[in-house]
Amino acid sequence: MIESSAPEKTPLVKEIPSKAKDLSDWYQAVCYKAELVSLAPVRGCVVLRPYGFGLWERLQAELDARFKATGHENAYFPLLIPESLLTREADHVEGFAPEVAWVTQGGNEKLSERLAIRPTSEVIVGVMYAEWVQSYRDLPILINQWANVMRWEKRTRPFLRTLEFLWQEGHTAHATETEAAEEVSRMLEVYREVAEDVVAVPVLTGEKSASERFAGAAHTYSLEALMPDGRALQAATSHELGQNFSKAYDIKFAAEDQTIQYAWTTSWGMSWRMLGALIMVHGDDRGLRIPPKMAPTEAVIVPIVRAGSDDVAAAARKLHADLRAAGLRVKIDERDLRPGNKFADWEMRGVPLRIEFGAKDLEGGVATLVRRDKEKGEAGGKLAIPLGEVAARIPELLVEIQANMLAQAREFLQAHTIRETDSDAFFRHCRDRDGMIDIAWCGRPECEAIVKARTSATTRNTRPLEAPAVCVACGEAATVRAYFAQSY
Amino acid sequence: MIESSAPEKTPLVKEIPSKAKDLSDWYQAVCYKAELVSLAPVRGCVVLRPYGFGLWERLQAELDARFKATGHENAYFPLLIPESLLTREADHVEGFAPEVAWVTQGGNEKLSERLAIRPTSEVIVGVMYAEWVQSYRDLPILINQWANVMRWEKRTRPFLRTLEFLWQEGHTAHATETEAAEEVSRMLEVYREVAEDVVAVPVLTGEKSASERFAGAAHTYSLEALMPDGRALQAATSHELGQNFSKAYDIKFAAEDQTIQYAWTTSWGMSWRMLGALIMVHGDDRGLRIPPKMAPTEAVIVPIVRAGSDDVAAAARKLHADLRAAGLRVKIDERDLRPGNKFADWEMRGVPLRIEFGAKDLEGGVATLVRRDKEKGEAGGKLAIPLGEVAARIPELLVEIQANMLAQAREFLQAHTIRETDSDAFFRHCRDRDGMIDIAWCGRPECEAIVKARTSATTRNTRPLEAPAVCVACGEAATVRAYFAQSY
Repeated sequence: MIESSAPEKTPLVKEIPSKAKDLSDWYQAVCYKAELVSLAPVRGCVVLRPYGFGLWERLQAELDARFKATGHENAYFPLLIPESLLTREADHVEGFAPEVAWVTQGGNEKLSERLAIRPTSEVIVGVMYAEWVQSYRDLPILINQWANVMRWEKRTRPFLRTLEFLWQEGHTAHATETEAAEEVSRMLEVYREVAEDVVAVPVLTGEKSASERFAGAAHTYSLEALMPDGRALQAATSHELGQNFSKAYDIKFAAEDQTIQYAWTTSWGMSWRMLGALIMVHGDDRGLRIPPKMAPTEAVIVPIVRAGSDDVAAAARKLHADLRAAGLRVKIDERDLRPGNKFADWEMRGVPLRIEFGAKDLEGGVATLVRRDKEKGEAGGKLAIPLGEVAARIPELLVEIQANMLAQAREFLQAHTIRETDSDAFFRHCRDRDGMIDIAWCGRPECEAIVKARTSATTRNTRPLEAPAVCVACGEAATVRAYFAQSY
Repeated sequence: MIESSAPEKTPLVKEIPSKAKDLSDWYQAVCYKAELVSLAPVRGCVVLRPYGFGLWERLQAELDARFKATGHENAYFPLLIPESLLTREADHVEGFAPEVAWVTQGGNEKLSERLAIRPTSEVIVGVMYAEWVQSYRDLPILINQWANVMRWEKRTRPFLRTLEFLWQEGHTAHATETEAAEEVSRMLEVYREVAEDVVAVPVLTGEKSASERFAGAAHTYSLEALMPDGRALQAATSHELGQNFSKAYDIKFAAEDQTIQYAWTTSWGMSWRMLGALIMVHGDDRGLRIPPKMAPTEAVIVPIVRAGSDDVAAAARKLHADLRAAGLRVKIDERDLRPGNKFADWEMRGVPLRIEFGAKDLEGGVATLVRRDKEKGEAGGKLAIPLGEVAARIPELLVEIQANMLAQAREFLQAHTIRETDSDAFFRHCRDRDGMIDIAWCGRPECEAIVKARTSATTRNTRPLEAPAVCVACGEAATVRAYFAQSY
């Protein structure tokens, strides 16, 4: 946890410590050693290095294709927001003002009004939508933005919480509340699909409680993932903003019946935080494990070349060319290092498949494929595949690896999702970080505050109650089911 | 020209004025009416609307593929730069300090050191490269960043000059000066290729004079395009930074011979300004004209549906589906508007091909294709193509349109590139904005200053002298050939 006010140098990591022993140490060691990020010379900010950016590009591509398939277009709104605009939606500014960075000087000119660096863009989007929307014919507006945003946080950690971060923020405006609600569920489902089917991180979806809601929203829905230390991580949110922002920023339209109405708006976002979940959920003591769909490099060829084995090098290069021609994201590692060091290096970087290729393999007409998702010595972890079949087998293996990683993560989540009815046990689970503690809950902020004060746990999200029950935390009548957990 | 200190509302454009009469009025009208940008509620900033962002995405895709093909990877560096770091390279800070926006407050905390919003990222990149580079084995570093940057300008204009803008900035570090110089020419050539072969904007390449050089660079090379009003527009730059930044930020490495050496660094950038060139070079009194490779929509189908002509609508939809399946970026316009209005609308938006499809076309088994690059009534502008051949003919037509637009623009540039030997004529051409005035030049800043004072023209870029000559501007011995022009 980086808490100092001065920027630090990126620590030099020699060995990756045990994940089970100290998740936080392990996590930061992996982030730095795998060259995902470096600490920047600005307090609380990181540099996303090429390998980390490769992960982000994969996530971007998967999200962006789905946003477009659901009718959205990209746009770009300004970084700076005048203070007088930010303060128009009262709840919103109350929620964000304490963590806003302010520009007060431009060149040699002292500004007459402070400009906020966007912590999120509902405000500036609201002002523009008011200009663009006149008639019901102008609706819906379905826009997404890929952007950097800034929140002046005290304690930071790569990917999970930094002053500046990269994300996407969708902003839509609709003629009716129903359409807005549909949009919000549609995008929550897009996020769930990407989290589970692409990043292989299983999530629990539901509605945020009033106290955990986005500042200014009528309803906030979230994806919650469970980290190995029993803490929850909010992986994405989707907000029904009701008419709060359209009233504050004057997004009005002439309806078909000629009445003037306020639009119903939504917003939804996923950030590079999702990469933090990927690292923590899948990594092990050897380093990163990247699900194939997220891997900048799906497979790496390590030729085991001894003096005079030019044939091996040539055959390995041919294999590399063939696999690339087959559309696979493959690298060949011809560095002047010992094979064992290369194996460890690519394991640490989490590449899903390693292709070992030496004189024996060449003789036998095979390549040796090693799966990163399996333990050393585990059945099916090491396969000798005839050279002619490698290009066809890899995609199949990648599918298996993807599925296996999701299954492993799902097993952990299920084993640590605890449906509890006993009050004492509930508080103990919360305190001990036993996972997602699922209870019938009254829904009252006062009750949530007591749980938080006693255990540090909060509601992650809620869903409808199946049958009448009493609140496991306080004994009042329950109104929802809720997952409680300590969180990142 | 937006000069006020308060933000303005986006003007409502009813009709596009004559391009020849007032390029500036025409330009802004097209930007707003085609919904490329809106003025933002922050002084000097714009919103890039979905159609404008579609252009930017095309440019990004074309550049990004070429950056990767030349061995570069993307990364992301922080937005904020501490003042103490910015000031380490003396020329650099002198060049940029007057136009930096400063963050002085974070949340409720007044910062002990001001933080600059990046006007460009050499500084923060330099600090990180110093951390990453130890040995010659760590070189070269070939990184590109897609980012927003900010320069506190007084006078702004959509795309051409705004306080915040989107760009890419490449930053590389090399072991030798030769490698760095090769990188700088390689990327200048990438830019030239994208400008000419993708954006269809012909450019003149060469080296900037000392006074026009990037602050802190040893050599700056540029692409210069010519706008219809005879002003030059700098479309991209590529800089040899020498060892200036590696000395200021301590980017050192152990060379193969064990000596400690400073790295040779480069940077190169193209921004959304290129879209401003696209608009001005290609547009006409009907609005935008977008070269096919840059067009978010390559062709639009306008069904001409009269009451009871369900067959036309169905056949148009089938054509749409077929063309999309063929991989074309095609839209169908089924809005409740008169066909003539739709024609004008898509012409204004610059879509390269319009596909008119009515009852007569259906009967004849054809579709009518209308080329946006041709004048109304011009030969070959309107073609009846058998329905079965449309999907195959469109790619051919798009290639022709792309080539024709480049040829038209090249003709203009050639007609307005004036090789001058007479001093009086030279000054007159410069004053009258006759185009790119090509002279033998002494290379002296004093001479450049006199030309600028008398005519507002500056050197755009220079190239080697073919034979001894005297400077056309001042009569001293010439050292280079130079293009002079007034510029954006």
